Amino acid sequence: MKTYRELLVARSGHGTSLRELDPGFSPIGCDKAASVEEVERDGLRLRRQQYLLYAGHARSLLICLQGLDAAGKDGTIGHVFTALNPQGARVHAFKVPSTLEADHDFLWRVHQQVPAKGEIVIFNRSHYESVLVDRVHHVVPSDVVNERYDLINAFEETLALSGTVVLKFYLHMSEAEQLRRFKRRLEDPSRQWKISESDYTERALFPQYLEAYEELLFRTNTKHAPWFVIPADRKWFRNLAVCKIVVESLEQLKMKLPKATVDIKDIERRYHAAHRAEKRGNGA
Amino acid sequence: MKTYRELLVARSGHGTSLRELDPGFSPIGCDKAASVEEVERDGLRLRRQQYLLYAGHARSLLICLQGLDAAGKDGTIGHVFTALNPQGARVHAFKVPSTLEADHDFLWRVHQQVPAKGEIVIFNRSHYESVLVDRVHHVVPSDVVNERYDLINAFEETLALSGTVVLKFYLHMSEAEQLRRFKRRLEDPSRQWKISESDYTERALFPQYLEAYEELLFRTNTKHAPWFVIPADRKWFRNLAVCKIVVESLEQLKMKLPKATVDIKDIERRYHAAHRAEKRGNGA
Repeated sequence: MKTYRELLVARSGHGTSLRELDPGFSPIGCDKAASVEEVERDGLRLRRQQYLLYAGHARSLLICLQGLDAAGKDGTIGHVFTALNPQGARVHAFKVPSTLEADHDFLWRVHQQVPAKGEIVIFNRSHYESVLVDRVHHVVPSDVVNERYDLINAFEETLALSGTVVLKFYLHMSEAEQLRRFKRRLEDPSRQWKISESDYTERALFPQYLEAYEELLFRTNTKHAPWFVIPADRKWFRNLAVCKIVVESLEQLKMKLPKATVDIKDIERRYHAAHRAEKRGNGA
Repeated sequence: MKTYRELLVARSGHGTSLRELDPGFSPIGCDKAASVEEVERDGLRLRRQQYLLYAGHARSLLICLQGLDAAGKDGTIGHVFTALNPQGARVHAFKVPSTLEADHDFLWRVHQQVPAKGEIVIFNRSHYESVLVDRVHHVVPSDVVNERYDLINAFEETLALSGTVVLKFYLHMSEAEQLRRFKRRLEDPSRQWKISESDYTERALFPQYLEAYEELLFRTNTKHAPWFVIPADRKWFRNLAVCKIVVESLEQLKMKLPKATVDIKDIERRYHAAHRAEKRGNGA
């Protein structure tokens, strides 16, 4: 049986059209109720792996979540990554660059947010926005976009070589599903505050974004930092797939608890001495 | 009936000895099984408040966790604050200052980590270490320690006036309980890697640390940034108390969802138009 990693890793080689990949896909026999339970159970595996990562203090994990508006980036965080211990895990959402950030190269602010040893960081949007928004809105000329793919690959290789596992998820949602989700947001008073004018103007550019994603998947799907294309029309399958791929990726590192750095026997002897002293103190 | 805030807030006025407060306290009729369930249920209240805080983008929450080794700072995070959505909540653990940090005033690195609007930040150890470790080990003279209390109060007032709710928790554990916990760590192979020589040398200074805590509780328990003394010998009560105080503090802000910033009716009209266009497209 294929692992989720094998099943959903982006194809290398050009010519793979996202239009040929069904955003509503889920494997035969895989249903909602069972998946929700499975994600719950896998939360424990995830937390176990996080503990080993934290204790080992040698490796780290960077997760990049990408997808169009309403593709489910926030939802994935809320459903899958709440299983993590907040100590040692962090979400960073990249917003419009500040003046200071805009005065530097496009990877400057990103580099500052990568995980430290033992840490897990989730990027909600990432450096990939600079080959998406900037490309679709012609903020930079196409040769600059081209150059950025190579710079991104070199950057991610730097991270990987220093022990960071880099996993990149493209949440693949259909245009029809996006419209349905926007509608549901409109009808839900608790979420109306989130709605902005740009959600609607960007929607018109759906095909251009899809094309930009196809190009970046082709250019930046590397061995040290693979892309996974996650069918995202069904939220429960999206959660299951992301969760499984993260767990599989960590478990294949076969991390072990580090050895004690002190002489446990010696410490034990001192403990017993302290304990006896305390008892005598109470008896006096 | 008293709220947990009222019950556990540190007394103002001098002369309150920590030795008179029972680290094993829990209210009559409050048992372990019910408390564990209660914390689980309150997780939903906490998450609801976090959502309002995030949406409102006006207030923020800073939680300082302090206590001696093994008092349960990590445990509180693992049991109470995992209920938070990792998006918008962050734990920061202060370690030994870097050279760059040591080249600045003692609040410099702390200020950089305070929560942004809408955010919750938990400090695992905090700026209070500079009136604890530095005092007990005579790193700085006592007039500097004295001065720092005032500087800390001014700093926290700055935060409070800009909309940050500051809650400070001292996890109050007995010396005997610390010894028991150290012993359990020694016997648990999955936690032996954590044990360091300094755990044991610091233990000898328990009375000095207690005295330093008494002093700082007296000097820095303010209206805009109150201290709570949490009986911490019983882990389940510690979790319940911290959880309740955080929930109560957020609920008393009576936060509401912000209004929509766009004309929902207008957007709805445009949606229906988009929907019709899509249908025609499919039919063609």
